[in-house]
Amino acid sequence: MTFKVALVQMAVTAVKSENLEHAVTLINKAATNGAQLIILPECFNSPYDTTCFPKYAESIPGPTSDILAQTANDNNVYIIGGSIPEIDNGEVYNTCPVFSPSGKLLTKHRKMHLVDINVPGKIRFREADSLSPGCDFTTFDTPYCKVGIGVCYDLRFPELAHIYGEMGCKFLVYPGAFNMTTGPSHMEPLLRARAVDNEVYVALVSGARNETASYVAWGHSTVVSPWGDVLATTEHLETIVYCDIDPDFVDKVRTHLPILSQKRTDMYSTVVKRK
Amino acid sequence: MTFKVALVQMAVTAVKSENLEHAVTLINKAATNGAQLIILPECFNSPYDTTCFPKYAESIPGPTSDILAQTANDNNVYIIGGSIPEIDNGEVYNTCPVFSPSGKLLTKHRKMHLVDINVPGKIRFREADSLSPGCDFTTFDTPYCKVGIGVCYDLRFPELAHIYGEMGCKFLVYPGAFNMTTGPSHMEPLLRARAVDNEVYVALVSGARNETASYVAWGHSTVVSPWGDVLATTEHLETIVYCDIDPDFVDKVRTHLPILSQKRTDMYSTVVKRK
Repeated sequence: MTFKVALVQMAVTAVKSENLEHAVTLINKAATNGAQLIILPECFNSPYDTTCFPKYAESIPGPTSDILAQTANDNNVYIIGGSIPEIDNGEVYNTCPVFSPSGKLLTKHRKMHLVDINVPGKIRFREADSLSPGCDFTTFDTPYCKVGIGVCYDLRFPELAHIYGEMGCKFLVYPGAFNMTTGPSHMEPLLRARAVDNEVYVALVSGARNETASYVAWGHSTVVSPWGDVLATTEHLETIVYCDIDPDFVDKVRTHLPILSQKRTDMYSTVVKRK
Repeated sequence: MTFKVALVQMAVTAVKSENLEHAVTLINKAATNGAQLIILPECFNSPYDTTCFPKYAESIPGPTSDILAQTANDNNVYIIGGSIPEIDNGEVYNTCPVFSPSGKLLTKHRKMHLVDINVPGKIRFREADSLSPGCDFTTFDTPYCKVGIGVCYDLRFPELAHIYGEMGCKFLVYPGAFNMTTGPSHMEPLLRARAVDNEVYVALVSGARNETASYVAWGHSTVVSPWGDVLATTEHLETIVYCDIDPDFVDKVRTHLPILSQKRTDMYSTVVKRK
């Protein structure tokens, strides 16, 4: 059962209310164009800036997630709500909420691996300055297939993608915001390898590039097939990228190249320590 | 301490004696050009064909490995001897022997994951028709850095590269022979992701393309940096690809982007079951 996804590469401003209004407009547009699962980028209601995270943080459920729930219900679509700064018990998380077509909050993924990068002269960013990491694997079921969620830097850890594959996910979704240093070097090969290694569809949804922001996003929202082909992508401007996902193709690739059953589990294995 | 490696993308024929003579000529040439570690492709003394493996197989040590040992000693270079069909106790393996600059057989790696591919209308190849898999992780020390060895299809298993990184390897070498179906789709993204995920240098050394062979190699021998950049590569013709490897750059990348210490070992881990 093929389904259509929309990657909403929206331009994010410093005004939360504007961001929410804009996200709703773009979701409505994507739904009108036939998308059944609509994905927002990382930090879509706040600048991606450690000093902003605590100021913009809200609870989930809360005002932003209420709007997304209503929009999912209005359009009868799944929404993977990118991420927003979430506050819970005094801790701030970078969290992706997921909504069903009836507007139910199905699950939320708190970014499990926090960015820590310091390339002299290029970029320095340390999420732990204001964020706490999540401690849960996050999947949800749809009539099409099971979906696994990571947030941006989570993509760097092959174990997470592997575990989601083992859990039965055929589509991995990473709301993200690679930067101008790591984006051109790492984003596409990481997406393609996660797809090929686990024989799953993989999508990364970035915000549009804003050269005036303190953190400049690379853009290039992309969907990769289980064979590693780039099925849909874009440059850095605001746009919606559409792609058809065929869960049956996952099974086909796994028949052609049965690497998942060829793991040498007598010699190594990936162990899940917490669920 | 930077060192120079040579990737010998040699043309392989069906005549073993010719292949050996040709390999020696190319190794001598690479050494004359300053290479300190010289790498041959997978199956360099035999066609890559399951019906040929038993016929061409020899023991290690044996005639082919004696010639490589002598050539290493003559040139005072490390040789990673691609792979050859090896026979031991009635079993045939796809094995990479490694020699020191004094001609000592340092170690050998028996391909751990055997190719099993069947893409209708494109390619069908099943190494298990005549080969047995190896059951050892294989590394060796040089004055430059520790090196980890896989053979071709072993590259598809991120666990192996991760374990080699954990064992202290800064350079992973895969003699290989991707084909015309998987080469263009998978080789470069897999090499780049293994390099980026483990922050190590990675090389794959293919034979040159022979359109008349039953299995046609993709070529494109490539070295990737710990940052994921393609440092040296080529097309499909016979050639020697040279590249300088700087083990200190591994440490630098790991300082800039400390992903290896950011693994969520409280939530997952890769367990080694046999050494």
